[in-house]
Amino acid sequence: MATIEDVAKLAGLSRTTVSRVINDQPYVTEEKKQRIIQAMKQLGYVPNSSARRLRSQKTETIAVLLPRVTNPFYGNLIEAMEERASELGYQVIVCQTHDSKQKELDYLQLLHTKQVDGVVMTSVINEWEEIEPFLQSGPIVLCNEYRAESQVSMVHMDHRLAAYESTMHLIEQGCRRIAYVSGGRESHVSFERKLGFTEALQEKAITFHTEMVIDWAENVQDGQRAFYDLTENFPEVDGIFTGSDEVAAGIIYEAGQSAWKIPGDIAVTGFDNQMLSLLMVPSITTISQPVREMAEKTIEVLYSQIVHKKVYQPSRYVYDHHLLVRNSSKRKTLSFQ
Amino acid sequence: MATIEDVAKLAGLSRTTVSRVINDQPYVTEEKKQRIIQAMKQLGYVPNSSARRLRSQKTETIAVLLPRVTNPFYGNLIEAMEERASELGYQVIVCQTHDSKQKELDYLQLLHTKQVDGVVMTSVINEWEEIEPFLQSGPIVLCNEYRAESQVSMVHMDHRLAAYESTMHLIEQGCRRIAYVSGGRESHVSFERKLGFTEALQEKAITFHTEMVIDWAENVQDGQRAFYDLTENFPEVDGIFTGSDEVAAGIIYEAGQSAWKIPGDIAVTGFDNQMLSLLMVPSITTISQPVREMAEKTIEVLYSQIVHKKVYQPSRYVYDHHLLVRNSSKRKTLSFQ
Repeated sequence: MATIEDVAKLAGLSRTTVSRVINDQPYVTEEKKQRIIQAMKQLGYVPNSSARRLRSQKTETIAVLLPRVTNPFYGNLIEAMEERASELGYQVIVCQTHDSKQKELDYLQLLHTKQVDGVVMTSVINEWEEIEPFLQSGPIVLCNEYRAESQVSMVHMDHRLAAYESTMHLIEQGCRRIAYVSGGRESHVSFERKLGFTEALQEKAITFHTEMVIDWAENVQDGQRAFYDLTENFPEVDGIFTGSDEVAAGIIYEAGQSAWKIPGDIAVTGFDNQMLSLLMVPSITTISQPVREMAEKTIEVLYSQIVHKKVYQPSRYVYDHHLLVRNSSKRKTLSFQ
Repeated sequence: MATIEDVAKLAGLSRTTVSRVINDQPYVTEEKKQRIIQAMKQLGYVPNSSARRLRSQKTETIAVLLPRVTNPFYGNLIEAMEERASELGYQVIVCQTHDSKQKELDYLQLLHTKQVDGVVMTSVINEWEEIEPFLQSGPIVLCNEYRAESQVSMVHMDHRLAAYESTMHLIEQGCRRIAYVSGGRESHVSFERKLGFTEALQEKAITFHTEMVIDWAENVQDGQRAFYDLTENFPEVDGIFTGSDEVAAGIIYEAGQSAWKIPGDIAVTGFDNQMLSLLMVPSITTISQPVREMAEKTIEVLYSQIVHKKVYQPSRYVYDHHLLVRNSSKRKTLSFQ
């Protein structure tokens, strides 16, 4: 790899002059500038961004904290964030918390030690009072997650309304004994979704069977287990709301190995509109989140906070979702009008 | 958040004494030690790991470079690496290169600027001579990828043999006009796979139709497109080797929307044994990689290089795979014995 010294030597100029050109500083004649640019091209020299970073006291790095990359929702979110960050000259490092309080705090230390300029949190495991002190070291923006008590910007969709619409759809398809299957974490997102679910039931005067709530289902295997738990213990189940396409896929896969028909016997909804929801047979009714828009907004808000330092107003950006009705819940004849 | 000063105050002891206990140093009586531990518990004080890191000149952080987290193979690899690293007291940051030479070099700068202690590369985009200088700043281990010319440790499986077995299986199922569908990158992994594919054809004296090679297919959408390309331009196609379960899933999905039968008209194989390969109808014949074992070995090798510095011999660890025959290629009657 060519160094700044190599460039200086080839151009027949001092290291300082080369450095001035790289950093776009004044007092270099156009002729010298062109000689240096030629030398850089000839040697394939790329300015050392870390050196530039050290000078500017910026790392030009953003850390994105998320539970786990194997969840495609977060994978897609990261993809879109990285693309936007890259356009703004920032690199992104991904940190998996695995829903561990300690890991979350450890990764937030990256702010404290100035290893990153800002942090995006897509979930919050600790109490907000544990997170707040880190704001003295740099900006944090919440994406997907929201916490009313935090004084930071938040970008998310209305999970309560999405769950309400999804549940209302199951009711319209004739479901009356609907199970609620979601992930284990006590997040605000889960709380809001459950609220939307119960509101829909209440509105249609349908009993909420608390024993038909499963709160530990996060992936395909959990969905498979949930199918057996529900059909064995509550064979009257006729609808399942899930918080994830993976869980819904696990349920549909197991139903396919049994005598249960989807959606005839049980109508099922997923969440997130992953590719999997389209590939399954039957395809999965799901909620489409505006992942790209939320990711871009998050990066833009964080970027402007990094650049403008303390001069910002925390804002809240709420995005629209779409219910995509597919074969896992679309019954041909409705038993309820 | 409680500070070391708060702990000292509550315990009625000096900051130095508290610091000694935190860092497990001698010359503190058991009685004082217990007072400090009590005070730490009472205040919920967690020793600042970054301060500890600064003292030790270690970041206790490993960077893992990968093309993109949305590919479940890399997602699972990262999960297993992070688990093992965590047991060894290391945190992992994930860096997506998106197959960009510049991004790969930018992330390698994390070694140079001492932001991480070591790097795992799961793919290599640049020429090795571009990577090599970074070894002066810290250790690099290759996982999944391999480069004969590099003087670093490598952990991978035999992609040539895996592709050979997979292709041989298609031939045994009666396929004679077999398409080769893989990703776009000119990696050594791709090179080895194609070698195994052509070797199997040669051994059975079957023509290698170079026009039936697709080299741009990496995800489900690409698989959908590949299905149309192949069936329109080469309607005689009767077998498809793919380098990814996602691509195979895209092909199977589109076949399901058409008059083509899988495996009757076209037998298809995937790669990586993702959950998706089991969930598809028909389920996908695939290669199971020992992801967990490779991930753990990689972290252990890197860890020992970080700890022992220059005293290491670069080694190569080659892991076994398994061909899992499922319904996408299992024909009931064989036309070839």
